[in-house]
Amino acid sequence: MTAGLDAARAEYADLVDRGLSLDLTRGKPSPEQLDLSAPLLSLPGDRHTAADGTDCRNYGGLHGLRELREIFAGPLRVPVDQLVAAGNSSLGLMHDCLVYALLGGLPGATSRWVDQERIAFLCPVPGYDRHFALCERFDIDMVPVPMTDEGPDLDVVARLVADDPSVKGIWCVPKYSNPSGVSYSDRVVRGLGSVAAAAPDFRIFWDNAYAVHHLTDEQVEVADVLAACAEGGHPDRPFVFGSTSKITLAGAGVAFFGSSPANVAWLLGHAAKRTIGPDKVNQLRHALFLRDEAGVRAHMERHRALLRPKFDLVRRVLADRLGDTGLAEWTEPLGGYFVTLTVPDGCAREVVRRAAAAGIVLTPAGATHPRGDDPRDAVIRIAPTYPGLGELEQAITGLATCVRLVGYEKALATA
Amino acid sequence: MTAGLDAARAEYADLVDRGLSLDLTRGKPSPEQLDLSAPLLSLPGDRHTAADGTDCRNYGGLHGLRELREIFAGPLRVPVDQLVAAGNSSLGLMHDCLVYALLGGLPGATSRWVDQERIAFLCPVPGYDRHFALCERFDIDMVPVPMTDEGPDLDVVARLVADDPSVKGIWCVPKYSNPSGVSYSDRVVRGLGSVAAAAPDFRIFWDNAYAVHHLTDEQVEVADVLAACAEGGHPDRPFVFGSTSKITLAGAGVAFFGSSPANVAWLLGHAAKRTIGPDKVNQLRHALFLRDEAGVRAHMERHRALLRPKFDLVRRVLADRLGDTGLAEWTEPLGGYFVTLTVPDGCAREVVRRAAAAGIVLTPAGATHPRGDDPRDAVIRIAPTYPGLGELEQAITGLATCVRLVGYEKALATA
Repeated sequence: MTAGLDAARAEYADLVDRGLSLDLTRGKPSPEQLDLSAPLLSLPGDRHTAADGTDCRNYGGLHGLRELREIFAGPLRVPVDQLVAAGNSSLGLMHDCLVYALLGGLPGATSRWVDQERIAFLCPVPGYDRHFALCERFDIDMVPVPMTDEGPDLDVVARLVADDPSVKGIWCVPKYSNPSGVSYSDRVVRGLGSVAAAAPDFRIFWDNAYAVHHLTDEQVEVADVLAACAEGGHPDRPFVFGSTSKITLAGAGVAFFGSSPANVAWLLGHAAKRTIGPDKVNQLRHALFLRDEAGVRAHMERHRALLRPKFDLVRRVLADRLGDTGLAEWTEPLGGYFVTLTVPDGCAREVVRRAAAAGIVLTPAGATHPRGDDPRDAVIRIAPTYPGLGELEQAITGLATCVRLVGYEKALATA
Repeated sequence: MTAGLDAARAEYADLVDRGLSLDLTRGKPSPEQLDLSAPLLSLPGDRHTAADGTDCRNYGGLHGLRELREIFAGPLRVPVDQLVAAGNSSLGLMHDCLVYALLGGLPGATSRWVDQERIAFLCPVPGYDRHFALCERFDIDMVPVPMTDEGPDLDVVARLVADDPSVKGIWCVPKYSNPSGVSYSDRVVRGLGSVAAAAPDFRIFWDNAYAVHHLTDEQVEVADVLAACAEGGHPDRPFVFGSTSKITLAGAGVAFFGSSPANVAWLLGHAAKRTIGPDKVNQLRHALFLRDEAGVRAHMERHRALLRPKFDLVRRVLADRLGDTGLAEWTEPLGGYFVTLTVPDGCAREVVRRAAAAGIVLTPAGATHPRGDDPRDAVIRIAPTYPGLGELEQAITGLATCVRLVGYEKALATA
């Protein structure tokens, strides 16, 4: 082990000397991925009329363009009439759903959330830091729930929601989860839809961000959460979110909301006060570019061709550099945007700190947990999509060096 | 008067027989106005990089594209660093400012608005129904303030804000006001900026929706509200809103927020939880199309050429048909989107009802007042921008018939 540490120290010194400046922080598409949607930049061209005759250039149309909703009804598993096409940000839709529940009251609620002493959300961990940031902003307590390899631990969920009427929601990224890559099993989806909740206004925030973002031929299908909840006797339980941010252009895409007819009417009733309508020109642009569900799938194949080599490289470098050390485990996701690297307890922050000191910026350790608190200090999220292959190889190799350095230091210190 | 009534009855019968279907309800640009921005539909073309090198297709850039903010800093009278370019809806920005003040607390506030027993906004009347709808949605009391020909009555404003710490805001459309067409005088702007307010977090919601929307050569300039408030010792008082909805494409434009550095930091701090960034591709598209402030002004001249004949026609028909009756007064706005028609007390609802029965749909009477309650029942908002000249002439002629019918009926009934 001392030999391992000596070697890691030498490698780390070399790494620092190289003065790298690499960024693995966020799940951003690469410029090459964005190039795939270049035609969007000159669409809709001389066309501005939707299939139903709507002039997309003028006000109105809060529900969103039907031809675009038809394209995404299948991938998001939401009937087209229950699917809303909105602005450029699904995070914004999640935010607004929280706001409307806080200030307006949900279907089935006995009071507005803001009038209740405590509101809590279940947070499967590891999870997505922006979900947690919304809870923090609105003083919503976060209750961590362990992830299994088929989704959040159902027994824990069942106990927490059954006992406590202040538990109003759960954050879910059901397919190729951020950051673990886990996809929910049918059993978990059915369980979430049928579990008895003390709160009549309990909601599943179903952030289906990676619905069509496959990395392998094994294209995972996750069960229909609207159907599962309806069958479980809770048709108003799920809020489905999706967006084209990682399909077309990040920040210039279209976000979607899908739910029961009662929830859709509730959302649109509130949204009608907030805005006269979404950017229908951008929706038309997307409908013309993607054409249909087959068009989306073909487009995602082109993303996969760009992304798969990056994920393969991460796996290869981690196996080469850490495979025989016993210092790390990592996920091999079938889709999505992330690899989760698990290092020995108490090492994640130090690995991230050492990497930053060597010019490799990672998502802060702890970001995968509510309030940035990973109790084991063991989880690091790797976002390999943005850098080119050369930079990525340098960054992952350097990261592996940091893992060995910190891991051996820790092991020797506690030996 | 009986003769007048008989003639009006005959005309109304003819009107009903014609089976019209005309809509004067909303302030929407006409298709011909939208055609002026046709180049936007194929922009940005093969360009996707902002002046500072930002890839507009990717996430981020919450403050908005600087080159677009530079174009609108002048028209909106906000320094470019204090101007935020956001999504497609200024109403959405106003909504979000209310939400953030309710749930997060404003700079200078002693507590979140939602924790206070009562929140009230001053509402100059006649005013804009969507402002009032936001207050209704969030249980914000509305206190009507009379409009004068130079803006809201300052004495009334001063008394209400000085006495009552629950008065947290005032809605202002400072130029070519909706629906009266009034532009605020320098005296009123200075007064709003300097008046003593009991609430430390009193805000002016300055909805500068018609900043460059002139109808005549007399291009009204309204005083700089940021400067007026700073000089009055209240730099954090104004929230400036604007958008290109009625400059380029309604619903597919760009909205702006401008304020003090403290308020901008506050807004962006909250917005950063809601979204990763605005649609920068649409912002780039707008910057390329409009080019600079002179480009905006030249573009607005083309709108004026389309709109001026419509406003002239409204004035001519109302003068011809109602000028010698003593039954109505109407505004002759120098800009903006509306004409306000004032009919005898107690007649507005009935005029709108009779017009609807003859196939002419008007904005509901009362919409210009909080909770739809015009205490005199006298104000009708005319939105002449959308229809073609032929339809508009039919609609205004028919409306004038309804005013005479209802006006003479009422006069005879009370004689």
